[in-house]
Amino acid sequence: MHFTSEKLLDDGVLEREFTLGEVPGVLWTPEPVSTPVPLILNGHPGGLDRMYPRLLGRARSCAAEGYAAATIELPGAGDRPPLVSVDEARADLRRALEAGGPVSDDIVDRLVLPLVEQAVPEWRATLDALLALPGIGGPVGYSGGVIAIGTRLAVVEPRISAAVLFAGSYVPRDMVEEARRVTIPLHVMLQWDDEGNDRQHALDLFDAFGSKEKTLHANMGGHTGIPRYEAEAAGRFFARHLK
Amino acid sequence: MHFTSEKLLDDGVLEREFTLGEVPGVLWTPEPVSTPVPLILNGHPGGLDRMYPRLLGRARSCAAEGYAAATIELPGAGDRPPLVSVDEARADLRRALEAGGPVSDDIVDRLVLPLVEQAVPEWRATLDALLALPGIGGPVGYSGGVIAIGTRLAVVEPRISAAVLFAGSYVPRDMVEEARRVTIPLHVMLQWDDEGNDRQHALDLFDAFGSKEKTLHANMGGHTGIPRYEAEAAGRFFARHLK
Repeated sequence: MHFTSEKLLDDGVLEREFTLGEVPGVLWTPEPVSTPVPLILNGHPGGLDRMYPRLLGRARSCAAEGYAAATIELPGAGDRPPLVSVDEARADLRRALEAGGPVSDDIVDRLVLPLVEQAVPEWRATLDALLALPGIGGPVGYSGGVIAIGTRLAVVEPRISAAVLFAGSYVPRDMVEEARRVTIPLHVMLQWDDEGNDRQHALDLFDAFGSKEKTLHANMGGHTGIPRYEAEAAGRFFARHLK
Repeated sequence: MHFTSEKLLDDGVLEREFTLGEVPGVLWTPEPVSTPVPLILNGHPGGLDRMYPRLLGRARSCAAEGYAAATIELPGAGDRPPLVSVDEARADLRRALEAGGPVSDDIVDRLVLPLVEQAVPEWRATLDALLALPGIGGPVGYSGGVIAIGTRLAVVEPRISAAVLFAGSYVPRDMVEEARRVTIPLHVMLQWDDEGNDRQHALDLFDAFGSKEKTLHANMGGHTGIPRYEAEAAGRFFARHLK
């Protein structure tokens, strides 16, 4: 992990950009800290530059609660080399939606599975590097989309103790089976009229998660219409499980 | 409205039992108050004596937030004259569930519609009497089950500003249509494995509500397994809408 920039923000949050291999990322830590702090990995739909204001807002909230927050760029997004097959699947998805037709399992598989396969090991390598830093301890939470990435991480990465997942993207059908192996506490957000996924499929996924503690918060509106009070609700979920 | 008993509880909550016509009820008010307080009507599945500990707990939470709370006995429950046809429908429901078969629309209609038809005017008369008391102002919220009663009240009673509904009982199919006419903010709780209702039907009802602001909180477990933190979430919902 190589830090490429360091900036102390006005509210005392230290923002450091890094690269891990070819993967760029950002780490935010509350300063100063006397004991190692919990860490929240913030997932997003790709495009660090575009997502930066929202990610920074989430990181500031994390820091205010005494957590470090980190994010990495999604494979194929931002300045990373494009993933041609994923881009083709995304174009197919757009055509299917414009035609008003159903979105085939094939399109969803080609769109999401390569991202899961590549992103999950990158998140795990990032976690290795972050937990080796002084000042960052645990426990670790995962927050955000892509929900298929969060689901796979929750299955394979035992260091993640709790997750806030946003049901805001398509999920390969096979991953509903995989979800049964998730056992950590989950807080799932669903926008009832989200244009970016299938509501029934999102409910099926929620139903499938094997976690004993899982909560679904569904609100009206589209993909970007999550009410402000849901950020506080997610914060309370992490406070119950990371503190 | 005739008060039949009055007791000052140890935390300064004044508990008064009353009758309104033949309907018994309880009013809890925070004491002392300098200005009229908002009011929350607490619904329940019937049996005031049996429900008293939980209703008192909810009333204490209301009082701590500066609200009055009130409840009345459900038609046919507790010491009220039995409703023979409803009792027969309840026995039919039990037989249907024991046989593992589906619960027919006919059973649900016979079980719930008479309660709605009788309870809603009783709640409205109670509201008339409560709002005429010094110290109780508004706005007014409705909280709890029976969800069909809460739904009808939200449609017909313009003095109710917001409602917390518990999707913990069957809903006549026609009332899903009626739900489209609800426009007040709603906070709906659903126990994912509730033995006392049909999950898909509960989701259909949530979908049908016409409210621009409606939130669904679904948690694991059966009818009585609502997590403790959901009481706080409902409290925050009312704080947003009644204060």
